Amino acid sequence: MRKVDPEKYEAKKRQILDAAVTCFAKSGFHKTTTAEICAEAQMSPGNLFHYFKTKNAIIEAIVERDRHETAEFHEKAGQAEDLFEEICKLMEERLIKVAEPIYRQIGIEILAEAMRNPAIGRLAARCDAEANAALIDLLKKAAARGQIDASLDMNKLVTWIAAMIDGAFGRAALDPHFDPIDQGPALREILTRLLKPTVKR
Amino acid sequence: MRKVDPEKYEAKKRQILDAAVTCFAKSGFHKTTTAEICAEAQMSPGNLFHYFKTKNAIIEAIVERDRHETAEFHEKAGQAEDLFEEICKLMEERLIKVAEPIYRQIGIEILAEAMRNPAIGRLAARCDAEANAALIDLLKKAAARGQIDASLDMNKLVTWIAAMIDGAFGRAALDPHFDPIDQGPALREILTRLLKPTVKR
Repeated sequence: MRKVDPEKYEAKKRQILDAAVTCFAKSGFHKTTTAEICAEAQMSPGNLFHYFKTKNAIIEAIVERDRHETAEFHEKAGQAEDLFEEICKLMEERLIKVAEPIYRQIGIEILAEAMRNPAIGRLAARCDAEANAALIDLLKKAAARGQIDASLDMNKLVTWIAAMIDGAFGRAALDPHFDPIDQGPALREILTRLLKPTVKR
Repeated sequence: MRKVDPEKYEAKKRQILDAAVTCFAKSGFHKTTTAEICAEAQMSPGNLFHYFKTKNAIIEAIVERDRHETAEFHEKAGQAEDLFEEICKLMEERLIKVAEPIYRQIGIEILAEAMRNPAIGRLAARCDAEANAALIDLLKKAAARGQIDASLDMNKLVTWIAAMIDGAFGRAALDPHFDPIDQGPALREILTRLLKPTVKR
């Protein structure tokens, strides 16, 4: 048996995922065939099968990749000094990703698929719960440092911060004038008003 | 030629739209065939064709129906005394709708379709722009009455209020503990913080 070079193996997987993301964004999960993914990745079906056994496995890997990136962000953010700033950055990084047409299309595809496909639904829910738990941690630490209002109910709040991130996908889909990157300062103002201790005017 | 009873005609159209919504929610726009819609509506293809020439025409009618409901809400809301209250009610009514599995699935389908299908994209964008214009009106009137903070930039704000509504669909799709109706009070607290004039603590 040939020895597998782990780096090459991972690079190949990334290549497949990128190709799959392109196909899914264009046609949706359901309409995309593995043959199309193979063509986009310039790879034979047998070769693709070596990395991913099913289309579902590819979708799962896409969700996992996003989960990994979010976890990395939170690990770094937790070590920063100004945690309010990190929360703003988290939102701004999401906006930068929403600005990529393929990323936002895949985001909406995952929402649709999570509601229809129980396996994807469970995986997406697990990733979402993880991201929200990390965000609650960040909020609580920020409150303990006086960087945000400690009287806020962080569990309730995190739901609506997450909703604003989800909502950025909706805005990008519906409003042709919505420029995600331009929205950074407006979102920061809203977060300031929402999170910072109330001051006298 | 037979004379058409307008009431019966509209009732029949509603029946088709309800059937189509059920099918689309289950299988998505792309996978659903007009034959499936006919079966769900208990109607022959010829009969369906009399009301809607294409699947796209059905999708458009679903978007139009939602647009009509939103316009009706705003017409009533504009005549109320406490406009902050009306803004909260608008959000709460959306949450009640998001609580219906079929409604939220269709909502996400429309987002996905708006990004892929230019005709649906334009129609959805027009409805969205209309709803946002009505909401800006409501916000400005509320500010003029001192019911919300007049120093807010209503154009920026409306984008993120709309994002919160879009985001409720995302939360419903991703978070199995998200109960849209239970979220009413939390959303009201957030809107209070966001919109009401800042007070001394």
